[in-house]
Amino acid sequence: MQNVQDYIQKNKQRFLDELIQLLRIPSVSADSAFSQDVIDTSEAVKTALENAGCDTVEICETDGYPIVYGEKTIDPNLPTVLVYGHYDVQPPDPVELWNSPPFEPVIKETETHPEGAIFARGACDDKGQMYMHVKALEFMVKTGQLPCNVKFMIEGEEEVGSNNLGVFVANNREKLANDIILISDTGMIANDVPSITTGLRGLSYVEVEVTGPNRDLHSGLYGGAVANPINALTKMIASLHDENNHITIPGFYDKVEELSQEERAEMAKAPFSLKAYQKALDIASVDGEKGYSTNERNSIRPTLDVNGIWGGYTGEGAKTVIASKAYAKISMRLVPHQDWQEITQLFKTHFESIAPKGVTVKVTPHHGGQGYVTPIDTIAYQAASKAYETTFGKKPIPQRSGGSIPIVALFEKELNSKTILMGFGLDSDAIHSPNEHFGVWNYLKGIETIPYFYHYFTEMKR
Amino acid sequence: MQNVQDYIQKNKQRFLDELIQLLRIPSVSADSAFSQDVIDTSEAVKTALENAGCDTVEICETDGYPIVYGEKTIDPNLPTVLVYGHYDVQPPDPVELWNSPPFEPVIKETETHPEGAIFARGACDDKGQMYMHVKALEFMVKTGQLPCNVKFMIEGEEEVGSNNLGVFVANNREKLANDIILISDTGMIANDVPSITTGLRGLSYVEVEVTGPNRDLHSGLYGGAVANPINALTKMIASLHDENNHITIPGFYDKVEELSQEERAEMAKAPFSLKAYQKALDIASVDGEKGYSTNERNSIRPTLDVNGIWGGYTGEGAKTVIASKAYAKISMRLVPHQDWQEITQLFKTHFESIAPKGVTVKVTPHHGGQGYVTPIDTIAYQAASKAYETTFGKKPIPQRSGGSIPIVALFEKELNSKTILMGFGLDSDAIHSPNEHFGVWNYLKGIETIPYFYHYFTEMKR
Repeated sequence: MQNVQDYIQKNKQRFLDELIQLLRIPSVSADSAFSQDVIDTSEAVKTALENAGCDTVEICETDGYPIVYGEKTIDPNLPTVLVYGHYDVQPPDPVELWNSPPFEPVIKETETHPEGAIFARGACDDKGQMYMHVKALEFMVKTGQLPCNVKFMIEGEEEVGSNNLGVFVANNREKLANDIILISDTGMIANDVPSITTGLRGLSYVEVEVTGPNRDLHSGLYGGAVANPINALTKMIASLHDENNHITIPGFYDKVEELSQEERAEMAKAPFSLKAYQKALDIASVDGEKGYSTNERNSIRPTLDVNGIWGGYTGEGAKTVIASKAYAKISMRLVPHQDWQEITQLFKTHFESIAPKGVTVKVTPHHGGQGYVTPIDTIAYQAASKAYETTFGKKPIPQRSGGSIPIVALFEKELNSKTILMGFGLDSDAIHSPNEHFGVWNYLKGIETIPYFYHYFTEMKR
Repeated sequence: MQNVQDYIQKNKQRFLDELIQLLRIPSVSADSAFSQDVIDTSEAVKTALENAGCDTVEICETDGYPIVYGEKTIDPNLPTVLVYGHYDVQPPDPVELWNSPPFEPVIKETETHPEGAIFARGACDDKGQMYMHVKALEFMVKTGQLPCNVKFMIEGEEEVGSNNLGVFVANNREKLANDIILISDTGMIANDVPSITTGLRGLSYVEVEVTGPNRDLHSGLYGGAVANPINALTKMIASLHDENNHITIPGFYDKVEELSQEERAEMAKAPFSLKAYQKALDIASVDGEKGYSTNERNSIRPTLDVNGIWGGYTGEGAKTVIASKAYAKISMRLVPHQDWQEITQLFKTHFESIAPKGVTVKVTPHHGGQGYVTPIDTIAYQAASKAYETTFGKKPIPQRSGGSIPIVALFEKELNSKTILMGFGLDSDAIHSPNEHFGVWNYLKGIETIPYFYHYFTEMKR
């Protein structure tokens, strides 16, 4: 691989400017108010892939937001890399907590990113990391160093469950045929501790509605005499964890993969400072399932979290009312072998069964996906490991992530190919939070590292 | 008392039109966005009192919204009735559940109100009931039948805790001196079952804030490893009631007045259909403190209800986030002898003590007030009873209300006078709820009944 660093240095400003343009478009897939922006973003991605050197790029319509597909074939006999990413982003709220507008990107230096970081919704998740692949392709094509065939599949519904990707993949097995799927939608431990994600958690996301009286009631005239839907909801949610923070849904843990002491000991070797972790979050102590470390709790163990709750009067001042309805959004992170649809059903059955008298309960599944674990003895992992070693100067650590990319399991099932997760973001980049950012160093380091993966992977495949 | 019915029949349409004009002004004291409307309403009340025949009417400024004070003195040696009411209203939300706009009053017939009811926020609580007294005064003055002196004190902060009324009353003991305080801000059992409220519950209203991490977090990367403020809040709130729906705050019941079996048996005689009650609310069963009937639960027993809860992502779709903060508005209805400030402190101490590790808790008292019980052997009660008997044709039933009018206890303390609660609304009038309304029959019946109270009270005082 020649002069990749020179090329990046020469084009650094343009690489940043192009990403910033993409980040200006508020492609919030969860909120229909932004639907035109999401569509505009798909067009922008199409243009970027064409400029980067793809032979053909198409906008593939779905029942939801379109999927941008592009490819460059240099020789059918050479291996093919399929790059997956997404151009949609999480909602920016609470907007008031952003130090600069979420869709007006700015570059600022931080303690972790002395060379500056781009602050904007989607900077890291996933526009920034997806765009690294576009620019890596540009480099390989423009300098005649693309060693294999490449396909891009960039979707616009990842943040809302990739509801239409499954159908698209099932209907396009031929077109999407590949030797390895490459994704940058995860993180690494630190800029001086590169890591490769070898595991992802599954997800089951549901919304619950508790209904009491048919109208809001005066809490003085009815208080104490009728079930209060908000009190009922808090009791139901509270009962989902026991005193050891184990989840109480019957059958929830039945299929959970228990790691051996050896595997846990291996995991425990990853550098981690509980003190720094707590300091970064301003918390006096961590909390979680009894018998597991913090890193185990957010990677190899399933969890249940309320992501949102609302009901009654939430405005300024006081209103003495008993609400007719109360709501919550609840998500469960799952580990390998837990089937998300089965878990969703277990939740539904259990949650409806614990409704106290005087209220009715409705559980609506939002979306979900399976967990995933990849072995580290594959060619793809070895090629990725060597690529990091080349550009970071040290061997990356295999690491399980607590996040979910449901479609990874789908790809394995439908396309029968493995996925390699080369993430260049950091946990501290605040994805899904106010002030999301992505280090300029990380962005450029990704562009530098990816071509080496292509190079080593093609070489090893021979 | 002569030709009161004739007078009402002749002026019925004007009485309705004037009230509807008053209801058009959105005097929501809880929301500062309506502050000018609240002030406009005080002006409208001033004008109404002047037109009704008061000698002097003033707008008395406070640190909050003004208090409208008016008086008509015919002879210092005669008794003085002080009428209290409020011109502010509850917030209308959820606005989408109203069948007609909350501040565009319409008269519609209902099953309970075959002669029509006025639908608007404040129709019953308390603009409609307050305005009955203004029109009753007009009748007595215009027909030369006012038998005693009268004072009006109409405030604009009842729905937010009457924070400035206490200071006003304490500073104006002379001006407010009276023989009886007359309030219509409660209800009666039914149009054919008149009742007089002899008890009110006290109130303690607090807001709680639970803080976990210093920013919203990705629920995949952090889920299960840090305390989730919403899960923590639900656990804390759920723990405030035990399996018998007793409140678990230490010391909460220490001063609760326990009624004798005789008193409870007397109460139980009030007509009540559990079946109709449940049907009206569309609930399969009632729920509440074990060992007490529905009517006891919402009158002689203290309660704790969440009036509002919010945190995390509550928008459309799904957001996999762990919120940094979660909030709830919680109110406790208190019974005689429970001191609201003491209970507020007990709540604060207890709630802060049950915060799970990894979160911090802040409890902010909103407002509160003491409960109240009035004996039925007083002249005022007898006069009111006789007034109802005259206009309804049957003796009213003494009844304890679950609601709170904190200033009643304050009046007794500061002005050393008793209060008589002549309510003409019904529980089904949906006060504090969407589609609040007030029966036209009830409105006019109030205007007809009030002058008889003046008459009998003055007579009995001789």
